[in-house]
Amino acid sequence: MKTSSVNMAVIGLGGRGRGMGGNLCQMPDVNVIAICDVYPDRVEATAADMESAGHPRPFTTLDYHDILAMPSVDAVLITTSWQTHLTIAIEAMKAGKYVASEVCGSCSVDQCWELVRTYQETKIPCMLIENCNYGREEMALLNMVKQNVFGELIHLRCGYEHDLRGEISHGHLNRHYRLDNYMNRNGDLYPTHGAGPMAKLLNINRGNRFTSLVSVASKARGLNEYVDAHVTELPGLSEIKGYHFTQGDVVTTIITCAHGETLLLTHDTTLPRPYSRGGYVQGTKGLWMEENYSLYLEGMDPGHKWQDFKPYLEKYEHPLWKWYQEEGVRGGHGGMDYLVLRAFVESFMNGEDTPLNAYDFATMTAITALSEQSVAAGGMPQPFPDFTNGRWLVPAPAKDRRYSLDLIPTV
Amino acid sequence: MKTSSVNMAVIGLGGRGRGMGGNLCQMPDVNVIAICDVYPDRVEATAADMESAGHPRPFTTLDYHDILAMPSVDAVLITTSWQTHLTIAIEAMKAGKYVASEVCGSCSVDQCWELVRTYQETKIPCMLIENCNYGREEMALLNMVKQNVFGELIHLRCGYEHDLRGEISHGHLNRHYRLDNYMNRNGDLYPTHGAGPMAKLLNINRGNRFTSLVSVASKARGLNEYVDAHVTELPGLSEIKGYHFTQGDVVTTIITCAHGETLLLTHDTTLPRPYSRGGYVQGTKGLWMEENYSLYLEGMDPGHKWQDFKPYLEKYEHPLWKWYQEEGVRGGHGGMDYLVLRAFVESFMNGEDTPLNAYDFATMTAITALSEQSVAAGGMPQPFPDFTNGRWLVPAPAKDRRYSLDLIPTV
Repeated sequence: MKTSSVNMAVIGLGGRGRGMGGNLCQMPDVNVIAICDVYPDRVEATAADMESAGHPRPFTTLDYHDILAMPSVDAVLITTSWQTHLTIAIEAMKAGKYVASEVCGSCSVDQCWELVRTYQETKIPCMLIENCNYGREEMALLNMVKQNVFGELIHLRCGYEHDLRGEISHGHLNRHYRLDNYMNRNGDLYPTHGAGPMAKLLNINRGNRFTSLVSVASKARGLNEYVDAHVTELPGLSEIKGYHFTQGDVVTTIITCAHGETLLLTHDTTLPRPYSRGGYVQGTKGLWMEENYSLYLEGMDPGHKWQDFKPYLEKYEHPLWKWYQEEGVRGGHGGMDYLVLRAFVESFMNGEDTPLNAYDFATMTAITALSEQSVAAGGMPQPFPDFTNGRWLVPAPAKDRRYSLDLIPTV
Repeated sequence: MKTSSVNMAVIGLGGRGRGMGGNLCQMPDVNVIAICDVYPDRVEATAADMESAGHPRPFTTLDYHDILAMPSVDAVLITTSWQTHLTIAIEAMKAGKYVASEVCGSCSVDQCWELVRTYQETKIPCMLIENCNYGREEMALLNMVKQNVFGELIHLRCGYEHDLRGEISHGHLNRHYRLDNYMNRNGDLYPTHGAGPMAKLLNINRGNRFTSLVSVASKARGLNEYVDAHVTELPGLSEIKGYHFTQGDVVTTIITCAHGETLLLTHDTTLPRPYSRGGYVQGTKGLWMEENYSLYLEGMDPGHKWQDFKPYLEKYEHPLWKWYQEEGVRGGHGGMDYLVLRAFVESFMNGEDTPLNAYDFATMTAITALSEQSVAAGGMPQPFPDFTNGRWLVPAPAKDRRYSLDLIPTV
């Protein structure tokens, strides 16, 4: 069933919810008709922003159940705290709302199962809104892998390497959920910016799957040193001075795939460093590395020297990005925020499942709970569940759609 | 007891033995009086080379036991196949010969224990000749770490990333031991070029130690594709065409330290790629990365951008390398081969233990056996033995020597 517009609600109005909600408001075929947050001031400020931008004032509430009860809401965008995404997503599917969930790491493997079971029972699509799957470089790499430029894939790396000490340590002032997680958990808390795109290169849940995971955490020192250094000059730090954070500064995870590939993940967010997603794609014919923006392909150079990636980015530009650059890149994070939302909205319009579906969502977000388990057990390997219960063996043919991540679209 | 010259024997006369033996021959205080290999042509060619270079003809034999029985031999350099280094080193200590052993990975943890027990019984020094410990960059980093430039160390990485498909696959023609290892083993076969320098940054066996290790291998495809592509043009490949190599193309290992640091190792030698030892040193104040020859230190740049490492290399030049550049850099691998041999020879002259001692040797070479065990067990963590039996808790003060790796020397 095709439709030409969608009524959406945004649940969670922190920085991300307001940013992504703003993207939705700018789409002529999307009506943001309801918003929700547990903090009244956020709800009011967002409603006021929408009105002053010329949009109708949305329905507002402090309880997302009110939104799930609205028959006029077709779909929800979940941009709450990490630890509540899955709970709300499951309830939203049960209420018949298409679900777009911002990225997160699960707190238990069981809740990932609950997500896929709910999807199977309700048939309501549930998409992980992983913007990095629509990044320009990531999509060019998908194109290169589909064209066999790197040969058979062997070893991939990715990560979230981002100095967030300021954001985290001011969590009690800015009401950010990161702080609670860093004070109490220990594992790869934020795996999907890297693992999302890499999973598509590896055909995860479509002919391949993650089979096991080991995860090891370093000690935790970065936040303490940061707080000590800034406690007199910045507000809100004194209450966590000397606190023993549980989250290790660097968490290293190795995932093994059914076809023998390995995927290395790094979570590194509490030390001073340049930003990187640590991308690395290595096959039997060559490799690409984000750190030096380079690649090397067999036979390209007798001296085995790295080559600039730029010309290859242009040569293998993904069709979606060619179109997007002609149409005009817009929205945050280099344009990929807009693309991932359009992927969701157009899936709804087409009455189809989303490019990152409930199985992908469960798989990606399960990494966090499995990582915590492995860290807690001294690096013990954790079996990676097959959330598809065998559907990955004979996947349904991918549809040729502009936002597909399972084939290179012609449309 | 100090001496002014040393009579040495070289056991193992493949490419490395002849190269390192040649370095020794050029030292006026070293007499290479005996050589050995299992292949008569190698022995004869080496003896002839030495004579034509103006050196006395050495004693020659096909059986290293003949060399260990010679009272006139003070010390041996072992440059045989990987899998025989430890056996010969143990016998050499028992025969009272100072031991310099080329790098290798152990085949069992038990033999690492035998090495340290033999050292304890005989008091004969036994040095791992890890040239990379004397590399210019590695020594500058040691200097930086001792000066606390990176703050408290948190996470380090290293590796051996070297396209050796040609050398390995021609092993039966060139009589190289690598091929036998790749045909039968699966683990980090060659960890010490990276782990040697990193262990010194981490004070391993001197106030810190490796406590556990996990290791995961990818599938093995690189050698097969190489052989398929070259079997008609290159000799010697037809006998291994279609062989099912056991050694995974990329082996990833995470070692945890007693003080909570993590060390990530990569072994990647059967895929096309630029050479790298993948160095990475990260602490609470910043980090250095080999791949882009860069570093970033807290506060150096508000934009969180990488900075060129070159000026820091010069600023933190290690005293040994300052002296060496004045004296004249010589020998292979950018000069570090000569330095590591001088470290050994001068330890002998001083009647002292070597900078990389028997405990360091056992620790470094144990990585391979532990990695094989972990890979075989699906990534199961392996307890890392304390080969010092507690001596690491209160290490003897390091001596101020030019070649020390435990302090920054003033001499």
